Amino acid sequence: MKADNIFSNIPKNPDMEIFERLAGSGRVSIERIISHGHASPASGWYDQETSEWVIVLRGEARLCFDDQTSIHLREGDYLNLPAHRKHRVDWTAPGRDTVWLAVHYRE
Amino acid sequence: MKADNIFSNIPKNPDMEIFERLAGSGRVSIERIISHGHASPASGWYDQETSEWVIVLRGEARLCFDDQTSIHLREGDYLNLPAHRKHRVDWTAPGRDTVWLAVHYRE
Repeated sequence: MKADNIFSNIPKNPDMEIFERLAGSGRVSIERIISHGHASPASGWYDQETSEWVIVLRGEARLCFDDQTSIHLREGDYLNLPAHRKHRVDWTAPGRDTVWLAVHYRE
Repeated sequence: MKADNIFSNIPKNPDMEIFERLAGSGRVSIERIISHGHASPASGWYDQETSEWVIVLRGEARLCFDDQTSIHLREGDYLNLPAHRKHRVDWTAPGRDTVWLAVHYRE
């Protein structure tokens, strides 16, 4: 068997956030997300059918929610977003990569 | 909402490996594992009903398999262990914590 590294093969200064599925099945998807100062479109919320467990492995980010609250995430911080908990990525650290790991799953 | 940190609340010099479920549902379990120089019992293999995606977030470890191969995992290294792929933890870095994140899921 061979291992890959979550911090490898990161494109330099990508124009958009990069979503990459690493493993999973029909009911679960394990995904790497690379942000580079990106935020979600200001107009829209993520309103997902599945729950999402997410951790910041490198960098920094701020998530905000439709009840006007927000949360600042540093390296190692994780949280669970239940399905239909509307959220968006308000900010990620400029000039560097923020590496997320996300697990989407059905309850 | 509140975040937790994967590197927080690590007991000092635990006698045994520590397994802690962080999130999940009936079909998926997201788990933190802390090793502190521990290895699996030499006599037994993990032979699991579920697939397991695993990443080393801190520390170092070596997994070995029943076909006599082994793999050394450093920070950020991940791999997917299909169900019934027999494996054991052969070694983890002595004198420090090795922090794993594991996602168990059904295909």
